[in-house]
Amino acid sequence: MKQEDFTFVKDALPFWNALSAEQKEILEYSITLRRIPAGTIMHGGADDLDGLFLVKKGQARAFIVSETGKEITLYRLLERDMCIFSASCMLRNINFEILVEAEKDTEAFLIPSTVYQSLLQSSIAVSDYTNQLMSSRFSDVMWIMEQVLFMSFDKRLALFLLDQANIEGSNRLTITHEAIAKHMGTAREVVTRMLKYFAAEGMVELFRGGVILSDPEKLRRKHA
Amino acid sequence: MKQEDFTFVKDALPFWNALSAEQKEILEYSITLRRIPAGTIMHGGADDLDGLFLVKKGQARAFIVSETGKEITLYRLLERDMCIFSASCMLRNINFEILVEAEKDTEAFLIPSTVYQSLLQSSIAVSDYTNQLMSSRFSDVMWIMEQVLFMSFDKRLALFLLDQANIEGSNRLTITHEAIAKHMGTAREVVTRMLKYFAAEGMVELFRGGVILSDPEKLRRKHA
Repeated sequence: MKQEDFTFVKDALPFWNALSAEQKEILEYSITLRRIPAGTIMHGGADDLDGLFLVKKGQARAFIVSETGKEITLYRLLERDMCIFSASCMLRNINFEILVEAEKDTEAFLIPSTVYQSLLQSSIAVSDYTNQLMSSRFSDVMWIMEQVLFMSFDKRLALFLLDQANIEGSNRLTITHEAIAKHMGTAREVVTRMLKYFAAEGMVELFRGGVILSDPEKLRRKHA
Repeated sequence: MKQEDFTFVKDALPFWNALSAEQKEILEYSITLRRIPAGTIMHGGADDLDGLFLVKKGQARAFIVSETGKEITLYRLLERDMCIFSASCMLRNINFEILVEAEKDTEAFLIPSTVYQSLLQSSIAVSDYTNQLMSSRFSDVMWIMEQVLFMSFDKRLALFLLDQANIEGSNRLTITHEAIAKHMGTAREVVTRMLKYFAAEGMVELFRGGVILSDPEKLRRKHA
């Protein structure tokens, strides 16, 4: 591992300082940096790497998919985020399948499951960190669930567009109606109909392959 | 604590044997048995007890509720189940509100949050147990989410009735359409319409205040 990568890892793992010299050494020598092209299924596909991913740069999404191919995005993984469910084989009592897909070209450090597992069993700091990660993902999923159950679709779509603009750092979003539908667990037609309504209200402009948030303030009032 | 209660607690807490003599003593003297009448909001109401509940007997449900009063049941707590979210103040990164309601007269052991918290910070066995509990609840919630997102309502209702018959140990369920709607996060009218369809198909019989599963096998094929 390069010195700058090592510094990044130490800094991103809050349990690092609580580890013994031996544990630090094992971790340092087992972590590898992986380059993952946009569009790759990092977890849940045919070429799974067995371990936890710590995102160095790029962007991934965790999602579930039904037997009929319907999807919904549960949460995003951005720089310094840890993907714990890619090592779900080591998490007892987890009996659901979350898929993870690189949305942009991504670089991530891979911690092998066996190494993490042994830390988990010997370090209370690692166990505590794992608890916190799980709680945090649990909260993300509950938030999506509350949205799906309790929020009308126009509010959800306004919120999705604003979140997306925030992640991209731009009000011009290159994203198809089909892709939005997949993130939100609905059909493309439903997305297209609501986007046309938003456009008629002057909140967005539509172009081939994307959406411009022309009046983000009005969108914000929509979802408030 | 009575001897039989003490035996129950030791047996239900898988981390008991890993505790130090001092930790065991603190836990033993801080646990109290509570009697909770059916209908009581055990967590999320005005009279919250601050701690974790271990159910001795009875039945409770964990649910979420929207601003407009719409509800959905996330999971059930039965004998020997631990209710961890009633101590959510001590769980970092949990930023959603789960309510817990006794569905039957319930007896539960209360472990004060402060006591559990100190065990969590000092015992890897307790930390590991907490991880497992959280994973297990996370799986329950993901299962509900997949049902809501991906399963048609007739299948969900068939599954709900079969689960309920299983919990009650009877095919005669004393439950209103309103209550079923609350468990499932939908409106009473939707439940009534589908139950009438099930009745017309000979799968159930309806009576004032309840449902009889007259052909459970046919219901089972419905949800399969």
